[in-house]
Amino acid sequence: MTQVDLNADMGESFGPWKMGDDENLLQVITSANIACGFHAGDPDVMAKTMTIAAENDVGIGAHPGFPDLQGFGRRNMKVPHASLRNLVRYQLGAAIGMAQAVGTKVRHLKLHGALANMCSVDLDMARACYQGALDVDPDIIVMVLAVTKQEEAVRELGCKWVGEIFADRAYNDDGTLVDRSLPGAVIHDANVAGPRILEMVKEGAIITESGKRLETSIDTICLHGDGATALQIARSVKRCLTEGGVEVTKFVR
Amino acid sequence: MTQVDLNADMGESFGPWKMGDDENLLQVITSANIACGFHAGDPDVMAKTMTIAAENDVGIGAHPGFPDLQGFGRRNMKVPHASLRNLVRYQLGAAIGMAQAVGTKVRHLKLHGALANMCSVDLDMARACYQGALDVDPDIIVMVLAVTKQEEAVRELGCKWVGEIFADRAYNDDGTLVDRSLPGAVIHDANVAGPRILEMVKEGAIITESGKRLETSIDTICLHGDGATALQIARSVKRCLTEGGVEVTKFVR
Amino acid sequence: MTQVDLNADMGESFGPWKMGDDENLLQVITSANIACGFHAGDPDVMAKTMTIAAENDVGIGAHPGFPDLQGFGRRNMKVPHASLRNLVRYQLGAAIGMAQAVGTKVRHLKLHGALANMCSVDLDMARACYQGALDVDPDIIVMVLAVTKQEEAVRELGCKWVGEIFADRAYNDDGTLVDRSLPGAVIHDANVAGPRILEMVKEGAIITESGKRLETSIDTICLHGDGATALQIARSVKRCLTEGGVEVTKFVR
Amino acid sequence: MTQVDLNADMGESFGPWKMGDDENLLQVITSANIACGFHAGDPDVMAKTMTIAAENDVGIGAHPGFPDLQGFGRRNMKVPHASLRNLVRYQLGAAIGMAQAVGTKVRHLKLHGALANMCSVDLDMARACYQGALDVDPDIIVMVLAVTKQEEAVRELGCKWVGEIFADRAYNDDGTLVDRSLPGAVIHDANVAGPRILEMVKEGAIITESGKRLETSIDTICLHGDGATALQIARSVKRCLTEGGVEVTKFVR
Repeated sequence: MTQVDLNADMGESFGPWKMGDDENLLQVITSANIACGFHAGDPDVMAKTMTIAAENDVGIGAHPGFPDLQGFGRRNMKVPHASLRNLVRYQLGAAIGMAQAVGTKVRHLKLHGALANMCSVDLDMARACYQGALDVDPDIIVMVLAVTKQEEAVRELGCKWVGEIFADRAYNDDGTLVDRSLPGAVIHDANVAGPRILEMVKEGAIITESGKRLETSIDTICLHGDGATALQIARSVKRCLTEGGVEVTKFVR
Repeated sequence: MTQVDLNADMGESFGPWKMGDDENLLQVITSANIACGFHAGDPDVMAKTMTIAAENDVGIGAHPGFPDLQGFGRRNMKVPHASLRNLVRYQLGAAIGMAQAVGTKVRHLKLHGALANMCSVDLDMARACYQGALDVDPDIIVMVLAVTKQEEAVRELGCKWVGEIFADRAYNDDGTLVDRSLPGAVIHDANVAGPRILEMVKEGAIITESGKRLETSIDTICLHGDGATALQIARSVKRCLTEGGVEVTKFVR
Repeated sequence: MTQVDLNADMGESFGPWKMGDDENLLQVITSANIACGFHAGDPDVMAKTMTIAAENDVGIGAHPGFPDLQGFGRRNMKVPHASLRNLVRYQLGAAIGMAQAVGTKVRHLKLHGALANMCSVDLDMARACYQGALDVDPDIIVMVLAVTKQEEAVRELGCKWVGEIFADRAYNDDGTLVDRSLPGAVIHDANVAGPRILEMVKEGAIITESGKRLETSIDTICLHGDGATALQIARSVKRCLTEGGVEVTKFVR
Repeated sequence: MTQVDLNADMGESFGPWKMGDDENLLQVITSANIACGFHAGDPDVMAKTMTIAAENDVGIGAHPGFPDLQGFGRRNMKVPHASLRNLVRYQLGAAIGMAQAVGTKVRHLKLHGALANMCSVDLDMARACYQGALDVDPDIIVMVLAVTKQEEAVRELGCKWVGEIFADRAYNDDGTLVDRSLPGAVIHDANVAGPRILEMVKEGAIITESGKRLETSIDTICLHGDGATALQIARSVKRCLTEGGVEVTKFVR
C-alpha cells in the first residue's frame, strides 16, 4: 500500500507570543518540524511542543533557521559556510537535548525559511548545513525539498533522507514553485489541494501547472501550520489521501 | 597520591569580540567550562574552543547561564523553575551536539555567573537546574560550589558530582565567600594563591580567613580565565600543587 | 468637569507575532504606552502603532522595559542603576525618533512589567529610571502608579507626572495591590469594573477592598490591552465614566 | 586653506567585551561614528563613548547597522525597504536620545558594515535608509562613500551630506574598492597611507591604483578603529595632512 507522511512546522510560538494551532494540528500530521530558538521557539515552547508531539505519536524533527527572531528566519542572510554548519549543529544539539529530556527523540531535520530557500538553489550551502546535522547525528533523516539542490546535497552526502512536496503550492515545469505573486500560485481551497496531492502521491511525481510529470520521491507532504485555513486544509488532504487508498503514516528510513 | 582538577571558564568570546586567553590557559587547566551561547559564546566559538580543549586532553563541561548577553549572565534574573530547567536542558543539549560534532564529549556541567550565585543559596533553584541537566544526560558530572546549596542539591539528587573551591577568593567561616568589597577578599598574588590552595587540597578542607577548617570534597580548583594575571596565577597554582605532591589531573567519577 | 485619561499598553507585537487588539482599543483609550523593542515591539511595530495612535488622537507614551523578549519584561532583573538610566534613555530616544518620523510626538513615559513593579517598591531604582527619561526630555510626563515609590520619585524629582490606578485590580489598605492569588484580586466583570472606577475618580481616592479611602491624584486609568475581555472592559469603563459625568480625555500637564 | 575631517567607527564594545582603543583614537579623529546597539554597542557603551567624544570636541554620528550582533553587522541581510527605513529611524532616535542625555548632539549618520556595502551598490536601498534618517532629523548630515550609490542617493534626496574615502584601501578605476583578496588592496603601512591621502585631499580626487583621478568631494577620511596599527596609521595620516598644509577639523555643513 502506498504510504505518505504529513509534516508541518510547529513550536513557532515565542515567549508570550502564540503562533499556530499546534495542539489540533498535531492530531492530523505525522511529522513535526520544531523550531529551535533561533528564528522562533524557546526552550519552554520546545519542551511543550515535543511533549505533545510524542503523545500524539508524531515524529519529531529539528527545524533550524537563521538567527533572526524579528524576521522569523525569512530574511536571507549571507553566512559563511563554517558558521552555517555550526549553527545547524547547535540547534540540532539543543533539539536533541530537549527531546531526550522529555522522553522522546529527534528523528529528522528540515531547514526553515530563508535558510531552506537559499539551500534549495545553492548546493554548497545545502551541503554545509546537512553536514552540520550529520556531524551531530549520522543517522538523522534529512527532509529535503524534492528536485532541488537540497535533494542533490543529500544524494551526494549519502545520508538518510526523505523528499517533500507542498500541499498548497503550484509547480513550474523545472520543479521550482510558481512565484507567489502569480495567480494560482498558492492553493487556498481545501477541495482542490486534497485531490491534487492524492494524484501526485499515487503517480510518484510532481504534477506541474502545465500538466507535466516530474518523477520524484514523495515521502512527505508539507502542510502549513499557520493561517485561518491551515487546519482545514490539513484535515482535507489527510482525508482525501486516506479515502484514495494512501496510508498516512510516519515515514520510515 | 592526592589528585585535583583545575577548571576555568572558557569560550567566552562572542562574534567579533574576544575574551580570555583560552589557547594558553587550555595548556594549564584540566577541565574547561564552556559558555553555551546565552550569556557568552556562539556556535563558532563553541566549536573552536571544544576542539582545542580536546586537543589538550582537557575535560569539557557545559557552562549554561542566564539569557543575558549584555550583562554576561551576571545580573540576577527571577526565572520560573520550569523555565530554568528548560534553559539548562537547551544549553546542555547544544553543548553536547557541538561536542559530538567536533569529535569529543561533554563530561560535566557547571552553572555560570548569577545563575550559579543564586543556586548557591537557593536549594530549589539549584535542584531545578541540575534536574534539567540530568534529564538530558543522567551521567553528567555536576560541578558544584563546595558547602553551598549547590552541593546540597546534588546530594539530594544522588547524581555524580565534584566539589570546587576558588583559587583566588577568601572564605568566611560559614563557607561563603568574603565580600568582594572587603580587603583581602580577592587574592591577586600568585605567590599567595598557590601555597594556600595546596594546603586546602592536602587537608581536604576549606581554610577560612580566621583559620577555621571546613572539611569538604575538594575535587577541582576554579581558576579565572580572564584578567591580566589569570594565566600567571593558573600556572603558579599548578606548579605549587605539583611540587607539593598533588597530581593535577582531570577528575574521574 | 472632572476629567480622566484611559491608558493601555500597546505595540506589544513582535516580528511575526501579534499581540493585543490595538486597532480597536486605540478607539477607546486616550493614552497609549508603546513598547520600545526591549521586552516587546520592534521598529516596524512601533511605527505602525504610533501612526494609528496619532490618527485616533491618542497620546503617545514610551513604555520601556527590561531587555528580555522571551520573558516579556516580566522577570525581575538586577541591573545597576547607571545601566537602568541608560536603558531608559535609549528606549525613550528610540521612541521619540520613531514618533518624529511618523509625524507625531512622545508625551509621556511609563515603565513596563517587572521594571515597573520593582520601581514601585524601590525609590532609588525609580529615581534612576525617571532621571534617565528626564535626561532625554525634561518635559516628558511620567506616568506613575499612585501611592507607590514611583510617585515618591517623581515628587522628589519635581518633574511633570500623572498618577494612575488599575481598572481591574483590588487594592489593600496600604495602596498595594491585592495579591493575584487571592479571590477578588482581579476584576473580570465589566459591570463591576466601571462603577467602581467611576466612584474612585469622583472621590479622588483609591477605594480599598475594606472600603478605606486613599486620597491621591487619579489622572489616568490603566486598562489591559490583552485578554479576551480587554476590549469589553475598556468600553464599559469608558461608558460608565462618561455617563457618570466624567470627561474621558487625554491628560494635560 | 583646505580642510578635511577624520572619522572612525567607535563605541563597538558590547557588554563585557571591549573593542578598539576609543579613548586614544578620540584624541586623533574629528568625527566618531557610534554604534547604536544593533550590531555593536549598548546603552552604557553609547553613553560613555559619546561623553568622551564630546570632551574631545569630536563630532558625533549615529552608525546604524543590521540587527546581527554575532555577525557584527557584516553579514548581508535581505530586509524589506520599509523595515530598513524603520531600523534606521529607531537607531538614530536612540542615538539622539543618548546624546541629549549626556549633553551633546548627533550631527551625522553613517551606515555600518554590510548595510553600508549593500547601499553603496543599491540606490533604492540607500534611499530607504537615508530617508529613514531624514524622517527623524531633516538636518542630519549623511556621510556617504564617495562615488557610490550612497552619494547618488543623497544627491537625489537633496539633504546635507559629506563624502568620505578610505585611508587604507586601494581603489579601482570605477571608484570601487580593490578586492581585499588582491595584493595591495589594504594599506598597512602608515608611511604609505599618509602621503597618499594627502595627495588625494589636495587634488580633490580619488587616485586609483592605475593612477587615474576621480574627482569627488573628499570631506572626510575613514580611519579604522580596530587592529594593532589603527592608532599608528591614524596619527600618521593626521600628521601628514597637517604638515602638508591641510587643516584637520570637523566638517561643517
